[in-house]
Order: sequence, then structure tokens, then C-alpha cells
Amino acid sequence: MKTVILCGGSGTRLWPISRKSTPKQFSKIFNGHSLFEKTIQRNNQLSDDYLMVVNQAQLPKCKEQSTDNTKFLVESIGRNTAPAIAMAAFVSSPEEVLLVLPSDHLIKDMDIYKECVLEAKNLAQKGHLVTFGIKAAYPETGYGYIEANGEDVISFKEKPDAQTALEYVKSGKYFWNSGMFCFKAGVFLDELKKHSPEIFEACKLASESISSTDTEIELTQQMMEKIPADSIDYAVMEKSDNVKVVPSFFHWSDLGSFDSLYEELEKDQNQNTSASNHYQVESKNNLILSDKRVIATFNVEDLIIVDTDDALLIGKRGQSQQVKELMLAVTHDHPELAK
Amino acid sequence: MKTVILCGGSGTRLWPISRKSTPKQFSKIFNGHSLFEKTIQRNNQLSDDYLMVVNQAQLPKCKEQSTDNTKFLVESIGRNTAPAIAMAAFVSSPEEVLLVLPSDHLIKDMDIYKECVLEAKNLAQKGHLVTFGIKAAYPETGYGYIEANGEDVISFKEKPDAQTALEYVKSGKYFWNSGMFCFKAGVFLDELKKHSPEIFEACKLASESISSTDTEIELTQQMMEKIPADSIDYAVMEKSDNVKVVPSFFHWSDLGSFDSLYEELEKDQNQNTSASNHYQVESKNNLILSDKRVIATFNVEDLIIVDTDDALLIGKRGQSQQVKELMLAVTHDHPELAK
Repeated sequence: MKTVILCGGSGTRLWPISRKSTPKQFSKIFNGHSLFEKTIQRNNQLSDDYLMVVNQAQLPKCKEQSTDNTKFLVESIGRNTAPAIAMAAFVSSPEEVLLVLPSDHLIKDMDIYKECVLEAKNLAQKGHLVTFGIKAAYPETGYGYIEANGEDVISFKEKPDAQTALEYVKSGKYFWNSGMFCFKAGVFLDELKKHSPEIFEACKLASESISSTDTEIELTQQMMEKIPADSIDYAVMEKSDNVKVVPSFFHWSDLGSFDSLYEELEKDQNQNTSASNHYQVESKNNLILSDKRVIATFNVEDLIIVDTDDALLIGKRGQSQQVKELMLAVTHDHPELAK
Repeated sequence: MKTVILCGGSGTRLWPISRKSTPKQFSKIFNGHSLFEKTIQRNNQLSDDYLMVVNQAQLPKCKEQSTDNTKFLVESIGRNTAPAIAMAAFVSSPEEVLLVLPSDHLIKDMDIYKECVLEAKNLAQKGHLVTFGIKAAYPETGYGYIEANGEDVISFKEKPDAQTALEYVKSGKYFWNSGMFCFKAGVFLDELKKHSPEIFEACKLASESISSTDTEIELTQQMMEKIPADSIDYAVMEKSDNVKVVPSFFHWSDLGSFDSLYEELEKDQNQNTSASNHYQVESKNNLILSDKRVIATFNVEDLIIVDTDDALLIGKRGQSQQVKELMLAVTHDHPELAK
């Protein structure tokens, strides 16, 4: 089995630690490790063959944090997940099982995770497209949902409104669409050809100028711009009748905001470093992310404090959706702070 | 009239902007100006002859922020205010009126201030030691008080307890001892000789190795260590029967804490710079002091945010007495942050 990690994305909801050149997946905010590194660590016992799909700007960080036995598929421009995964499939042998993972999710409960991956691999070897459904714990409106009956997919659901999301959670039959997949390279390409032939043909054409022995494969702008952009969900998963879902009960977070980061990290200690650079008096429940400077607080609680070389973010937990508006205002005046 | 500014002191209650080498009086936190510079500006129309009493470590900052027509009396070690003022008096002619001022106070209401200084000068020329009494606006327990009847001093009072302070304020006869003085150099030295002859003799001896034409006079450790340390209040003012008080009704603050700084400065805008480096969403009443970095806040209020190159302080207004404890904890581990 080959692990394909989709390293793209430049989430700005975790600005200022997440930027275009150093998106959140490469920030070492988990006891000195990044989400990308933790994704590799998590899968090391399951597969030691890695293919990173990464954009040009993030390649240096990606290489720096990768292990040996890693190939890099370098996109000059992004065309969403369907082409990225198709190109990964084209540089693999058709019978090879691909475990396709985002690089920026947090997962705990390793035993359960391993069981789920092995079950997905088993279903993939039988010729299915497999998706991982995360048990919907609360009525989140920011995710897509999968209605399931055991391992059978009944339907995919778009991001619901609050009322619908609540019904989904109450019914117990719905799972969050995690963006993790498992299938044989050949099976995926067959289904892509059937349901999105334009993407298939454009990717096939692009793949013909690739030498499969390269450890670093550059997908040039000329190759990429001819490929229609689409997500794997729209292009394949929602249209195929060959999809299975692995109901997954491990702890999972997409860390899509500082509030979700707040939930996952230890409060009242600096996350980036073990150095003693954080001091509190009459303060508690503060999430502190700092590169190097000493941070001292008095009489504050429930704060999110994010300290970087050129920007400082301070806010109250529970309102971190406002970071986007703040970031847009800041980077309008200071475009260098988005890079 | 010569203005003598006592530049010493290294208040740590405004750490991290106030440090040993850059105490609060030299920090440019008032629309790009420091308290020291504002002290000079305030007195420029009253006198253009300055004598700065400053310690060796702070001399570069002091010179950088001084105007022409300035002499510097440089102390290798501090011996409190009585010797500092005595040395200033010894390098002046006996008939010269000295206006002695701290460098780290904030004063508003310039018209009233000027009237008070001219009244003090008038009393000084008549041969009195003059102190400025600030009308006690609230029962502050951190200041000494002066009981007065018009311009006559009835008594000096030590820092009172809360109950006593309240009685002082209610009576209307008490003024805060501001640490500002006015007298002829010769009158001060006569009174010093009478009430604290050891300090007088030691300072006289030290003064004999000074050339009065120097613009920069170094008081060596050898000269200073033989002088007993004492405050002007203990050594002279509280003992002399030749003291007058000018009741002063201008706005005054010693800026002895971030809470008092919070009261004096505009909130929700950066004080150090006019650059647009401060952004807020759903935030208000935050005092922000930052050298250069962008600071972005969401859903916070009543915070004191102090950003320096190597340390960041964040706290809730109303509790800034805790800064001392914080500073001690930080500088125990990081002594370089006290320098």
C-alpha cells in the first residue's frame, strides 16, 4: 500500500501561523511537530512508501519534514483533489492500493485508526472505492455528510443547514466526509474515466510526459492548466456506485479554526517549544503559540494568543471565525503578511 | 532659572517597556515622544538652561533626547535625591534658582502649570524652599502627603493607610508630594548643611574635584560611594521650617503602573507609531503599545497589550500591580530581559 498525502492548501483561518508558504500543516505547533509530520508518523507502521502531492511554494518545507522513501509530485498550479489524485494514480501501478490522506488533520486513538485503515485496504483490494466516515459527534454545518448503512453508502450530502445537521446527528446514520480515501490506482482511474472523462483524458495526457522513476516529478503549468479543476467527491465519489464507507470512531479534527485548535491543545503552556518562555499570574485557560519570545500574562483567561515574528493575534476563544475578517483587513494593508 | 531634571530610576512596574537601560521616561510611548522629552517641552518657555542628573547606563538615551544648552551630571552610582540635588546645587551659583523635576511624570493643563512654576520661582527668590503639592484627587496610598494652609506647610505625612488617605482627601487640606521643587542653590545647600551635615560635607568634598565649565560632569564611584544616600524629603524638606508649598491643580500622573498609563493614553490605537499596524474586530478599550509588529485582536476588551522585541505582556486592566510579580518570575529565568 502506498500513502498519498495531499499537502496542498494554504488555510488562512489559522493566520498568522498559517500562511501561503507555511500553511498550518507545516507549522510545528504540536510539541515541536507539525500536522504533516504527525500524519507521516501515524502511517509509518502501515506503509513506508510515500507520495506527496505538493505545490511548488511548499515543496521546500515538505521535503524538510519528509522521511526517506518519499516521492514528490509537484504541482505548479492546483486543480483541486480529483486531478491531484489522478496524477498520483497514473504514476502508480494499477494494482497498487493508494491510501489518500489530507496532511492537515489531527487524529487520536491509533488502535482504532489502524483497524479502520486495514479494513479500508481490505475493501480496496476487493475493488471498491473506499471513503472514511467520521462519526458525526455534533451538528457541524461546515462539513459534507455521508449517509451509511454499515459499509454501504446510501447517499452523499452537501454541507447542511443547522436544522438538517441536527437531524443527521440525531439519526445516528450519518458520518462526516473526512477527505480520506483508499482504492486501487486502476480502480480509481476506471471510475474517473467513467464519470469525469475530461479530467481523466487530460491527466492521462499529462502523465505521458512523466518518467515514473523520478523521485521528484514536476507537473508544469503547461500540463496542469489543461486539466479541469474538480474535487474527488464531485468528480467520482458522489457519482460512482462502487463506493464503500468505513465507519470510523477515532478522535478526529480538521483544525479548521483557532477554536478547534484550542480544543485540541494543552492550555497555559507554550506549544511550540519546551523552553520556559511563558509566565502567568492569575491567568488560566489561555492557548499560547509562540516562536521564541517570552509571553507574560496577568488576569486573563480563555484567550488565544498567537505570536509570530511579524504579527501578533489576540482573541477570545469561541469567536475565532472572526480571524478571517481580521486577516483580510491586515493583509490588505500589509500583503507581505499573507505570504 | 535653571531646570534640573532627575533622570534616574529604572521603574520596573512598566516592564517590559521600562528596563534598566531604557526606563519608562525614555520610552517613546506618547505619540512618538518620551516622558523625558515631554518634560523638556513643557519647560522650554520657562527656562532654556538644563542640567540633567543621569546615571551612566542611561546617559546615551538621555543625550539623544536632550536639546542644546544642556549639561549632564553623570552619576556612577545612585545615592537617592538629596545628594543628586546637592551636586546640582554645587555646580550652580548660589543665587541661581533651580527648578528640580522628575523626568517621568505626565502633566497636562499647561497654563496652570506655568502659573504654579512662576509662583514657585517667586517664592524661591524670596529665599524659601518650595515644593509643589498636587491636589489629592482620590485616596492613593502609594504617595506621601503634605498638609497645607495656603502656601504654608503644616506637616509632611508618610504614605498613609487607606482609611487615613480617605480622611486626607475628604478634609481638602492635603496635597500629594509630587517630587517637584524650586529653590535657590545656596538656600538649599544652607538648609542641607543645617539638617544633614554629613551629606553636605561629602557632596562639598566631591564638588571640589569638578570643573564647573564641563558640559558633562562625571561623578565617579570613588566620589559617590562616600556620600550617604537619602531622599530630599527626609534629608531636608521634612526638617526645614523654611518650606512653602504651591497648591497645584493641574492634571498630574506619575504613571507608576500600567493602570495609570491606561488612564492617560488613547485606547484602541497604537501609541508608539502612526503606522497602521493595529487591527481590531469586535474589540474595544484595549491599550496597545507596540514597536513594530502588526497586532490583530478579536473579541477582547479592557486589555493591556505591551509588545517588545523580546517579551510580550498581556493583562486585564485594573490588576496591573501584578506586573511586578510577573517581571520577577520572568527575569529570574531570563536576566537579559531586565537589562
